[in-house]
Amino acid sequence: MRVGLIGLGRMGRDMVQRLLRGGHECVVYDLDHAVVEVLENEGARGARSLAEFAAMLSAPRIAWLMVPSAVVDQTIAEVAPLLAADDILIDGGNSSWRDDIRRAEELRSRGIHYLDVGTSGGVWGTDRGYCLMIGGENEVVERLDPIFATLAPGIDAAPRTPGRHGEGERSERGYLHCGPSGAGHFVKMVHNGIEYGLMAAYAEGFNILRHANAGTVSRDADAETSPLREPELYRYDFDLPQIAELWRRGSVISSWLLDLTASALLKSTDLAGFAGHVSDSGEGRWTVNAAIDEGVPAPVLSAALYQRFSSRGDAGFADRLLSAMRFEFGGHREKGGQRGSGQ
Amino acid sequence: MRVGLIGLGRMGRDMVQRLLRGGHECVVYDLDHAVVEVLENEGARGARSLAEFAAMLSAPRIAWLMVPSAVVDQTIAEVAPLLAADDILIDGGNSSWRDDIRRAEELRSRGIHYLDVGTSGGVWGTDRGYCLMIGGENEVVERLDPIFATLAPGIDAAPRTPGRHGEGERSERGYLHCGPSGAGHFVKMVHNGIEYGLMAAYAEGFNILRHANAGTVSRDADAETSPLREPELYRYDFDLPQIAELWRRGSVISSWLLDLTASALLKSTDLAGFAGHVSDSGEGRWTVNAAIDEGVPAPVLSAALYQRFSSRGDAGFADRLLSAMRFEFGGHREKGGQRGSGQ
Amino acid sequence: MRVGLIGLGRMGRDMVQRLLRGGHECVVYDLDHAVVEVLENEGARGARSLAEFAAMLSAPRIAWLMVPSAVVDQTIAEVAPLLAADDILIDGGNSSWRDDIRRAEELRSRGIHYLDVGTSGGVWGTDRGYCLMIGGENEVVERLDPIFATLAPGIDAAPRTPGRHGEGERSERGYLHCGPSGAGHFVKMVHNGIEYGLMAAYAEGFNILRHANAGTVSRDADAETSPLREPELYRYDFDLPQIAELWRRGSVISSWLLDLTASALLKSTDLAGFAGHVSDSGEGRWTVNAAIDEGVPAPVLSAALYQRFSSRGDAGFADRLLSAMRFEFGGHREKGGQRGSGQ
Amino acid sequence: MRVGLIGLGRMGRDMVQRLLRGGHECVVYDLDHAVVEVLENEGARGARSLAEFAAMLSAPRIAWLMVPSAVVDQTIAEVAPLLAADDILIDGGNSSWRDDIRRAEELRSRGIHYLDVGTSGGVWGTDRGYCLMIGGENEVVERLDPIFATLAPGIDAAPRTPGRHGEGERSERGYLHCGPSGAGHFVKMVHNGIEYGLMAAYAEGFNILRHANAGTVSRDADAETSPLREPELYRYDFDLPQIAELWRRGSVISSWLLDLTASALLKSTDLAGFAGHVSDSGEGRWTVNAAIDEGVPAPVLSAALYQRFSSRGDAGFADRLLSAMRFEFGGHREKGGQRGSGQ
Repeated sequence: MRVGLIGLGRMGRDMVQRLLRGGHECVVYDLDHAVVEVLENEGARGARSLAEFAAMLSAPRIAWLMVPSAVVDQTIAEVAPLLAADDILIDGGNSSWRDDIRRAEELRSRGIHYLDVGTSGGVWGTDRGYCLMIGGENEVVERLDPIFATLAPGIDAAPRTPGRHGEGERSERGYLHCGPSGAGHFVKMVHNGIEYGLMAAYAEGFNILRHANAGTVSRDADAETSPLREPELYRYDFDLPQIAELWRRGSVISSWLLDLTASALLKSTDLAGFAGHVSDSGEGRWTVNAAIDEGVPAPVLSAALYQRFSSRGDAGFADRLLSAMRFEFGGHREKGGQRGSGQ
Repeated sequence: MRVGLIGLGRMGRDMVQRLLRGGHECVVYDLDHAVVEVLENEGARGARSLAEFAAMLSAPRIAWLMVPSAVVDQTIAEVAPLLAADDILIDGGNSSWRDDIRRAEELRSRGIHYLDVGTSGGVWGTDRGYCLMIGGENEVVERLDPIFATLAPGIDAAPRTPGRHGEGERSERGYLHCGPSGAGHFVKMVHNGIEYGLMAAYAEGFNILRHANAGTVSRDADAETSPLREPELYRYDFDLPQIAELWRRGSVISSWLLDLTASALLKSTDLAGFAGHVSDSGEGRWTVNAAIDEGVPAPVLSAALYQRFSSRGDAGFADRLLSAMRFEFGGHREKGGQRGSGQ
Repeated sequence: MRVGLIGLGRMGRDMVQRLLRGGHECVVYDLDHAVVEVLENEGARGARSLAEFAAMLSAPRIAWLMVPSAVVDQTIAEVAPLLAADDILIDGGNSSWRDDIRRAEELRSRGIHYLDVGTSGGVWGTDRGYCLMIGGENEVVERLDPIFATLAPGIDAAPRTPGRHGEGERSERGYLHCGPSGAGHFVKMVHNGIEYGLMAAYAEGFNILRHANAGTVSRDADAETSPLREPELYRYDFDLPQIAELWRRGSVISSWLLDLTASALLKSTDLAGFAGHVSDSGEGRWTVNAAIDEGVPAPVLSAALYQRFSSRGDAGFADRLLSAMRFEFGGHREKGGQRGSGQ
Repeated sequence: MRVGLIGLGRMGRDMVQRLLRGGHECVVYDLDHAVVEVLENEGARGARSLAEFAAMLSAPRIAWLMVPSAVVDQTIAEVAPLLAADDILIDGGNSSWRDDIRRAEELRSRGIHYLDVGTSGGVWGTDRGYCLMIGGENEVVERLDPIFATLAPGIDAAPRTPGRHGEGERSERGYLHCGPSGAGHFVKMVHNGIEYGLMAAYAEGFNILRHANAGTVSRDADAETSPLREPELYRYDFDLPQIAELWRRGSVISSWLLDLTASALLKSTDLAGFAGHVSDSGEGRWTVNAAIDEGVPAPVLSAALYQRFSSRGDAGFADRLLSAMRFEFGGHREKGGQRGSGQ
C-alpha cells in the first residue's frame, strides 16, 4: 500500500524502513530535509512540504504522524486542510487518549477518519517489529490491515500460548484493534505504566544487591544514625552483570527488560555514564490519573513514577521541611549528606 | 554423579526427573513413601528412612534438601548425624540467607560442607531447566558442577547478550556461584522480591484496563462520593486476553510472567476461579527488610508486598479506624461497601 | 451583615448557627423545608424558593452555597439568573479549584463576583469555628471580612507561634485570602490530601500495635506461608484506648486527629461498629493528580488514597490475577483467605 | 525520690532539670564532666565515675540511662556490676524492644530489674513534660510512679477526652505502663513510625503548594518531556508561612507538628538553611520491619521512611539503572537534571 509518514525522528525513520522492506510505498516528510533525503536513498518518496506530501498520496490518503505529543495538534491543524473526505489520519505517537477522542470528533466533521495507534518497540522495532495498539472505526482499521501486519512482529516472534491454535488472531501477530477512538492510546498508556513498574522493580532489586556489602562500610554511631544491627549479614560483593545474565534463563523474572539490563550492565558494571535523572514522557502520569479516576489502587505504578520525580530532585523542598521539623522538635542538626548521591 | 534428594514435593520430584534424564544417579527420600515409589519407577533409588538414604550414597555424599523452609533446620538436625566429614549438604529451598550463614558455621565444625542454592523455575523446571543461585565454598561448588549444569537450562534457553562470546560462562548457562554462604539465597530472595514487583505491575495495569468502563457505571452523587469528572473518557470494554497476547510480541513489557498472564486470561477472562487471597512465602518480606537494613529505598517492592497483605484482609482494623475518625470529625457514616470485592 | 445560605446539610446548618450567634442576619434556603423551619426558630429568615431567597437579600447580595460538589454547577445555573451585577456568590463546599476558575470567568461576564472558600471544621465548627481558605478578588474578600471573622475560630484558638506579635494577621485568626479564583479550594484540597496522609499514618500505627500479639497466634508451616521467625517478640496485648490517650500529652504526634482517635477508641476498643469501607470525597484524588501534574512526588498521600480504594475492594481483579500467575508458574493454590477481614 | 541519670546529652540534661524542679534528688554522670558541673550548679549531685555514681545512690538504686542506642549495651555492661539485687536499671533512650527482652532476661539473673521507657518530647520536654511509654514488671513501675508523674506533662496538658471523668488514669497524665519488657519501646517505636508518616504528609502537601506555580515555569516540548496539559491551572504563588499558620486553628489537620512547621516557615520561607538530607534514627525502620513480621500493610509509614533514604541519595544506582534501560530500549538520552535539587 501507499502510506505517508510525517515525522522522521528515531521511531518514524525506523518504521519507514520496515514498511519499505515489507513492500509498501512510503511518502515521507520532516522539517529536517536531510533525513528526508536519507530515506529517499532507501526507496522512499520524499516531500519538501506538507502540500507536496498530500499531493504525492493518492486518495483516499493514509497519513501517519510520528511527532512528539506536544506538537500533534499543531501538525493536525496544518495537515487536515490538505486532506479530503475519507482520508485517514493516524497518530502513532504517545498522545493521551483524551486528545484522541476530541480529535476524532473534530476530524469526523470534515469526513476524515482518525486512528490512534500506540506503538511499542523502541529502537529495536525495525528488526523486531512493533507492537501496535489501535483505536478507531473498525472499517478503517480493516482497510489498513496490510500496513499493520508489516509493522507488527508476526506470530513467530514468541511461542504460542497453550490453547491457541489455527492461523492466529491479530493479537498473536502483534497488533490489535482495541476499541473506539482513544482505545489504542489508552492501552499503550497502561502498557507504559506497567513498563515503569517493571523497570522500577528491577532497579530496586539490583540496588539492594549492590548495597549488600553495607556491613563492611562503617557507619557513625550517634543519636542521628541507626547502627546496622547485624553487619555480618551484609558482606556480599555481588557481580551484577553475571546475576542479570543468570536470571535470563529458567527464572520466573526473565523478560526483555532483563535482557536489556544484562546488556547495559555488561557494558558498564556501575553505569557511571548515567547521572540517574530519569525522564518520564507522560504515559506513567496518565496511567496513575486513570487509576485514580477509576478508583482502583495503583501503588506500584505510582511508586515507580514518583521514583522518577525524586531522581530529578523534585522532592527538595519537602526534604528540607522534614529536616526543619526535626530541628524544631528535637534540635536535630542535619548530617552532611553522608552518603553521596553517586554511590 | 550420584546425588541424594530429600523432599519430593512439587519441586523436588521434578528436579529428580531432570537429573535422571541427565544421566545422574538419584537416591530419593520423602516421608510420603508413595512418591518415593513413583520415582523408583522412573529410575531413582528409593530410601525408606534417612539412615537408608545415607547408606545408599557413597562418600563423599551429596544430600540435597527440597523441603519447606520452616522444617529445614529440623531436617538438618536429623540428617547431619548420618553424614561424614567432607560430605555436602545442600539447601535448595527458600531459606533466609541468615539461616545459611548460621548453618554453614554449625556444619563446618563437623566437617560437612553446606551450600545454599536458590532455585527458580516452578512447575516448568523439568523441561525448561532451573535457574540456580549458589552460595558456599568455591571448591565445593566446582565439585558439583555436573549436577548444576544438568539442572540449569543451558545457553540456548535465551539469545546471547550482545558482547558475550565464546563458550559461555556459567551465568549464561543458568547457574552461578554468587558468593560465600548465604549468597545464593540472598540473590534468590531479591529475585523473588523483584518477582513480586513485576507481578504487581501487571496486575495493577490489567486492573486499570478492566475498570476502563467506569464511565458507564453509575455512581452516587452525595457528599461522600466524588463524581467521575469526565465519564465520557471511561467507556472502554477491553478484551484482556487479547491485550495480554498482543503485548507478548514486539513490546517493551514482554516477559515470561506476561506469557503466563496471557495463558491464565485465555483460560478465564475474569479469573473467577480465584478468590484473590495472595500468599507470600517469605522472600518478599526479607527483601524489604534487607533494603531497610541497607538504607536503600524499595517503594515498589514494598507496595507489591503490602498489596498481598491487603488482599488477605489484614488492613481491617486500620480501615475501621479511618472510618471511625471520619465519623468523629465529620459525622460521616460509612457507605455500604458500595463496590463489592468481586468486581 | 446580611448573608444568604443555600444548602442546609450538616455543615450549612452549623454555619448558620455560628453566624446568627455572631450577630449576622441569615437568609436560608434548602430543598428540605423542614430544616429551613428549624433555623427560622433559631432566628434565621427562611425562604421557600430561590426566587424568594434572592428577594430577601438586599443588593449587593451575598449568597453562600453549601451543597455537594456534584450539584454546585446546577445550583449556580439556577441562582445566577436571580442575582444582579456586584452580587457575590460563594462556593463553600468541596469543589475542585479547576471548576472555580471556570465559574469565576462565567459569572464575571454577568458582573457577579465569585469566591471559593474551602471550609474545614466538620461537625465541630459551630463551637470551634471554621478554618477558611479563600480564593477570589481581593476587594470582594475585604468586603466579607466580618462574615469570615465570625466563622473563623479566632486568635485564641491556639497558642501564638513564637515570633508572631501584635494584633495578628488573618491567618492567625483562622482565615486567609490565599490568592485568585481557585486558590481557596486548591489550599483546601491539599489540606484534605494531608488529612488523608495523617489519618493513614495513625491507622497503620494502631494496626501494628493491635497485631503485636502475632507471636501468640499459630500459623501454618507449609510452602505457602512464611513462619514468623521470632514469635517471642510479638506477644503484646496493647490497650489501644490508653495508648491513644497517652500520646495526647507531651508527645511529638499529638494532634486533633489523635484526640478524635482517643475518643473513638474509648467508645469502642475494636471499632466493631465500622465495616472499614472508607469513602473518599474527591480532594485526595485531586491532590495526587496535582502532584503528578506538577511533577513532584507524593508517595505518602497516594498510599493513603489507595488504602481507601483497597478498603472498598477495588483491587479484587488485580489480586485474582496475582493468584492466577502464582498458579501458572508454581502450581500454587490459594489458601482460604486464612485471615478474615474482620481481624 | 533519689534517682541517678547516666548520659547528659540534650534529653538527659533537660530531664534532670525537670526532676529537680519536681523536688527529686538527682545523681548525675556523663563522660563529659563539664555538663556534670553545669547540673551540679542547678542542684544535682555530680559523679565523676560510674563507681562514684553507684555509691552516691542508696539501695535499692534507680539508674536511668539516656545514651545513644548504639552504646546502651556497653553502658549496661559497665554499670550492672556496680548494682545490687533489687536495684532498677532504666533505658530511656531509643532502643529496639528486642534488645529490651534480652537485657531484661540477662539482668534478671543478677536480680536487677530492667525497665524500658520510650520518651517523647524532644527539646520541649523540660517545660512541656515528657510522654512516657513504659515496659517491665508491674511492681517496679509502681515503685517509680513519683518519678514518672514528675516527668510527664500532667492531665492539664490537653482537654479531657469526652467520656473520661474522675481523677484520671496515668495515660491521661502522660505516662503508661504498656506491658512487659519491651512494651515501652515497642509503643515508642510505633509512635516514631507514625511521626515519620505525619511529617511526610505535611512535607508532601507543602511541596505541592510550593509547586502550584508550575504553569508559569516553561518546560521543554520534546519526546522526553510531558508538557503540562493545563498550565492555566497552576499559577498560584502561595504564602506557605501564612497557610501553615492558618491551618493551626479550626482545621482538621491541626497538630503539634503543624505548630512547629508554622514556626519553621515563619523563620525562613524557603528553608534555605537546610540541605534536605533527612536522618532516620532506627524506629521508623523497626516499625516497618514489625509490620512485615506481623503481615500487616504499612504503605504510608514505609513511603515516609523511603523518602528519607532517597533524600540522602541512596537510590542513585537504581536511578542510573532506569536511565540505562531507557537508553537500551529507546535510545533515550538523559536530560541534564533539568530541575535542580535546590528548587
